[in-house]
Amino acid sequence: MGKYKIGIVGATGYTGSELVRILINHPSVEISVITADSRKGERFIDVHPQFQGIFDAPLVGIEEIDKHKLDIVFLALPHGVSMDFVKDHLDRDFKIVDLSGDFRLSSPDVYESWYKNDHNFAEGFEAAVFGLPELFRSKIKKAKLVANPGCFPTSAILALAPLLKEGIIDKDHLIVDSKTGVTGAGNKAKPNTHFPVVNDNFTAYGVKTHRHTIEIQEVINAYSGAESSVLFTPHLLPVDRGILSTTYTKPTQEVSEDLLNKIFKDYYNNEPFVRLVDQVPSLKQVRGTNFADLYATYDDRTKTIITVSVIDNLVKGAAGQAVQNMNLMLDLDEDEGLAIVPLQP
Amino acid sequence: MGKYKIGIVGATGYTGSELVRILINHPSVEISVITADSRKGERFIDVHPQFQGIFDAPLVGIEEIDKHKLDIVFLALPHGVSMDFVKDHLDRDFKIVDLSGDFRLSSPDVYESWYKNDHNFAEGFEAAVFGLPELFRSKIKKAKLVANPGCFPTSAILALAPLLKEGIIDKDHLIVDSKTGVTGAGNKAKPNTHFPVVNDNFTAYGVKTHRHTIEIQEVINAYSGAESSVLFTPHLLPVDRGILSTTYTKPTQEVSEDLLNKIFKDYYNNEPFVRLVDQVPSLKQVRGTNFADLYATYDDRTKTIITVSVIDNLVKGAAGQAVQNMNLMLDLDEDEGLAIVPLQP
Amino acid sequence: MGKYKIGIVGATGYTGSELVRILINHPSVEISVITADSRKGERFIDVHPQFQGIFDAPLVGIEEIDKHKLDIVFLALPHGVSMDFVKDHLDRDFKIVDLSGDFRLSSPDVYESWYKNDHNFAEGFEAAVFGLPELFRSKIKKAKLVANPGCFPTSAILALAPLLKEGIIDKDHLIVDSKTGVTGAGNKAKPNTHFPVVNDNFTAYGVKTHRHTIEIQEVINAYSGAESSVLFTPHLLPVDRGILSTTYTKPTQEVSEDLLNKIFKDYYNNEPFVRLVDQVPSLKQVRGTNFADLYATYDDRTKTIITVSVIDNLVKGAAGQAVQNMNLMLDLDEDEGLAIVPLQP
Amino acid sequence: MGKYKIGIVGATGYTGSELVRILINHPSVEISVITADSRKGERFIDVHPQFQGIFDAPLVGIEEIDKHKLDIVFLALPHGVSMDFVKDHLDRDFKIVDLSGDFRLSSPDVYESWYKNDHNFAEGFEAAVFGLPELFRSKIKKAKLVANPGCFPTSAILALAPLLKEGIIDKDHLIVDSKTGVTGAGNKAKPNTHFPVVNDNFTAYGVKTHRHTIEIQEVINAYSGAESSVLFTPHLLPVDRGILSTTYTKPTQEVSEDLLNKIFKDYYNNEPFVRLVDQVPSLKQVRGTNFADLYATYDDRTKTIITVSVIDNLVKGAAGQAVQNMNLMLDLDEDEGLAIVPLQP
Repeated sequence: MGKYKIGIVGATGYTGSELVRILINHPSVEISVITADSRKGERFIDVHPQFQGIFDAPLVGIEEIDKHKLDIVFLALPHGVSMDFVKDHLDRDFKIVDLSGDFRLSSPDVYESWYKNDHNFAEGFEAAVFGLPELFRSKIKKAKLVANPGCFPTSAILALAPLLKEGIIDKDHLIVDSKTGVTGAGNKAKPNTHFPVVNDNFTAYGVKTHRHTIEIQEVINAYSGAESSVLFTPHLLPVDRGILSTTYTKPTQEVSEDLLNKIFKDYYNNEPFVRLVDQVPSLKQVRGTNFADLYATYDDRTKTIITVSVIDNLVKGAAGQAVQNMNLMLDLDEDEGLAIVPLQP
Repeated sequence: MGKYKIGIVGATGYTGSELVRILINHPSVEISVITADSRKGERFIDVHPQFQGIFDAPLVGIEEIDKHKLDIVFLALPHGVSMDFVKDHLDRDFKIVDLSGDFRLSSPDVYESWYKNDHNFAEGFEAAVFGLPELFRSKIKKAKLVANPGCFPTSAILALAPLLKEGIIDKDHLIVDSKTGVTGAGNKAKPNTHFPVVNDNFTAYGVKTHRHTIEIQEVINAYSGAESSVLFTPHLLPVDRGILSTTYTKPTQEVSEDLLNKIFKDYYNNEPFVRLVDQVPSLKQVRGTNFADLYATYDDRTKTIITVSVIDNLVKGAAGQAVQNMNLMLDLDEDEGLAIVPLQP
Repeated sequence: MGKYKIGIVGATGYTGSELVRILINHPSVEISVITADSRKGERFIDVHPQFQGIFDAPLVGIEEIDKHKLDIVFLALPHGVSMDFVKDHLDRDFKIVDLSGDFRLSSPDVYESWYKNDHNFAEGFEAAVFGLPELFRSKIKKAKLVANPGCFPTSAILALAPLLKEGIIDKDHLIVDSKTGVTGAGNKAKPNTHFPVVNDNFTAYGVKTHRHTIEIQEVINAYSGAESSVLFTPHLLPVDRGILSTTYTKPTQEVSEDLLNKIFKDYYNNEPFVRLVDQVPSLKQVRGTNFADLYATYDDRTKTIITVSVIDNLVKGAAGQAVQNMNLMLDLDEDEGLAIVPLQP
Repeated sequence: MGKYKIGIVGATGYTGSELVRILINHPSVEISVITADSRKGERFIDVHPQFQGIFDAPLVGIEEIDKHKLDIVFLALPHGVSMDFVKDHLDRDFKIVDLSGDFRLSSPDVYESWYKNDHNFAEGFEAAVFGLPELFRSKIKKAKLVANPGCFPTSAILALAPLLKEGIIDKDHLIVDSKTGVTGAGNKAKPNTHFPVVNDNFTAYGVKTHRHTIEIQEVINAYSGAESSVLFTPHLLPVDRGILSTTYTKPTQEVSEDLLNKIFKDYYNNEPFVRLVDQVPSLKQVRGTNFADLYATYDDRTKTIITVSVIDNLVKGAAGQAVQNMNLMLDLDEDEGLAIVPLQP
């Protein structure tokens, strides 16, 4: 039996190269076409020389997608650009995993309010399923369009959703303090990613206004039926990859370590990519992999539930989760091609 | 008129070398004696070669302190060791600035509960003044013994104390999420400070149990008269120096950006080392200096006050603040010898 | 048909965990036993928590090796310790890949002169084959004992051996200036690997005396028949993984870029793990992989041949090359289990 | 008596901010005017917020220089731009220290050959003195125009010039292998200074063609009377500041450690900023300071002289050396304002 045929739209960024890194060792799929309008005519290794001798393919224009009979198309495009492709291709035979933020929220209005950008395809929101398999697996299996979650939201939602769903935390005291590696900002050089600006340094950014705030809030509310307000503060770490999110929530009832453990085990014990850990996790223990490591504890002195979760923002926070979604959409084993060992150190 | 004579007890650590870095350019003092029991007989540059051609002195035993007529003695000793020196020398003519945690808390009982270590000099707590000049300047000027604040507490107390004192925040929702450079762990190599463990990595530690929790809580309570509970979570950054603390508190009344600004200006506008900044600060903008940069904002959507403060943990969080205290104790200009420009980048 | 059975002696270090990282995805082998005398009775994930959910096994004493019917044993032991195991086990049925330096040199005398350590098994030198497949493939296939090359030597020998063998460089002007990540120093915390000592810093070490000097020199001389003297200077980079070696040699005849290219293509064009690159390589383009990327150029102005080569010191410089040797010794495809994509960034 | 009046042309880059960092604590000078055409109308702290509360001044256009009665003007301008200012202002009353590369070489022809850029002011080469005080102090004192040395050349020339001048090294075997921090590339974000490109990475660049090659070669030849050819290879370190240069040269006569020591002591023992060290130096031991630390040794086995030197590229490699030159030109103490202690760690 033949392999499933994959298209990747957007080859030049980190998401594009991570998709290739994972997919070329996936036994059931093959990359049929890979596009990059800005580097059309060049080859993949011209942009990502580390793939020399491993994977090379011509970079073609986005219009070439239509010439291939594809099963899945990954959109590794910037926010605001994906929507055009989806608008034009949602009725094709292939399914779409969109790694941008264009269809993660509940409506064009919410999108425009937080992204400060017009949306041109309201119908897409109807079709889109939020691609966090641990919460929405059955919907993903049947989806035509999956909105692959943001990196921060993946780390925060996995920690907060069970607690909110179980009704044990106060919906008005949800604090997410996140710290991310620089690849989260993409592979374009900008003043705030200049090495001497980031190295040996640390700061917060997007205080009160980061777009992932609303993504976290909407998803945990949709999942739990609550109407919470989430405060989310991202910080920029002098590291390449990884997000660590520390959450602080207040219990609405008597809480214990045992109860926390029980809840998280109920939700995640059979999940292939969520590891419940009994030591505070660090970024490197998931580096390069699709794991989300989650630690939870209760501080009786201050009546606060604390969670610490880590992911690789480019894998479980982007390309890895996209492949996990693809596996579900193609009815493959959910972890196929994703048995990657963390690169530590 | 002669210069004031200074003794430094404990030359081998980062605090010792930072004291020397600052004091040798201080116009009103001179280092008369510097001790290091573990390296007695060697010279200062044997331990800190960067001082070649700048400062050299023999390292002597602690007993040599008594042979000098000193005005101030700095204790750059580990926790649990300082108390012995203080016990034996509190009645001498010199004043003491203790950079350890031995006399920062309210009593031996509290100390023993959080430090898991016996205390042998209860009387020291009576004498000791908490050396945060911005809050306790007048007491410091008259103190015989100053307990120099911890690094995390310095960054957190400066942010929280005014808000709690003004009664505008809920005493049961004080969250301090701090991130520190590795020098906070001292200059001894340990498994958790091994370069490949820290580099390109990030984690939390001491969750719920870090000793600085109680220091923050006791000081802001003593200062404000409130009975707050503080939740404090430190994280380890892959950087050398610096602490950034993000605090989250809940208002007890109507709050606005203007009110926050007014409060912090009232408290700090004339402070030589607190800079109120209108952009989120980063570690490097205070590197090597005694500045504490403080940013505050209010999130109306979630009803949360957010502050972000940065210090250099070895300077405002240790040696620089110790010199600031010394200046007060010797009735010198508070910023004498501390006009250091941040090393950025 | 069953899988080949593997023993790993020495599980606690980076080499041990890298062997596991590679071998658990190798289709033709299985890890039957893994030892760690210092952590006997614990489990592999107690030492390497990143393997939670991936690989776990009890850590047993070295004496357990004899209870298994093994095909290959990897020795991930310190220098000076491997020789004991080899002495006692060279006559067993399994083959041995020794990742230490104990059998890389030509004789016990040379060993003792550079390692400042007695050698107790001179016979091992007869049996041992230097495990650099690109130069000694046929011998490796038949070897009972393979001395896996040092990390620096791997990067330097691949660059110098062809030039010396072809007789186009002066044997008295071989300069190797290498720069390594910190994992090359092992996973034990030491003063010179303390994060604040290494971070944002750089230095040379082992000038004139590093043990890898003689390994480089002996191997290229044995291979080429020349009697060269090699000057080797290692430097310590603030990075985790990777070695970049810059070599400077003087031609003994007319040389051109074309000639250099031709020579290296003749030697390496069919090698699965040597990539000849036409841009100066960087460490990350081989991170986590068994590749050695090699760049060569000629400076006509100063009559100097310059090469720049990069490897991952833990992979092509240790565990990956060991698996490559294992594949040869078991008559498997040389690149089986080693199709790893670089983790960049 | 009043202070000397200083103008700084070009405030936005690292060189500009470092000049300010040093000069504001210099007792004999004051900054009268500071220009930045691209940020005209803003204030210095808008560009360099770390100076809040320390130094602020309006940023004015370059034409404002003429309205002030200045003693010294520093040009912190890009290569190719300085020459215009010099052309127009060389006849003014003030002296000029040019930190660009526009007047460091011997002639417009050499400049154009290596900088691939036309030169429009040949007369400037006559006036310009190469501003390395350790070699050209007396000329600098009388100079109207000082060409402040490049960063790499400063580290390399200090090591090579004495050896070549004494005639003990072969002029055809001068190899300089240098490693620099990223600030050497300026403060503009570029693809090759994007954090994820540099972090945990290392590479060489400008192989055979870097402009500093000819600067090193011309200066050591002019100083010694030899006609050497220098091979120079720079590498990019994942650090902010600092250059470490390793040089390899071949003796033309019997050489010993003692002879090397004697030569370097003869040249540098009374130099305020050259420290001869007996341990291999590291970058951080000079960070933020004007020191050049120099180590030399002889490898009898391979007949090679090895030196390792470190500087802070922004200080001794730029702004600090410029102030050192200014002190000489104003007949001040050479180290006035430069008594900076290294920031380590």
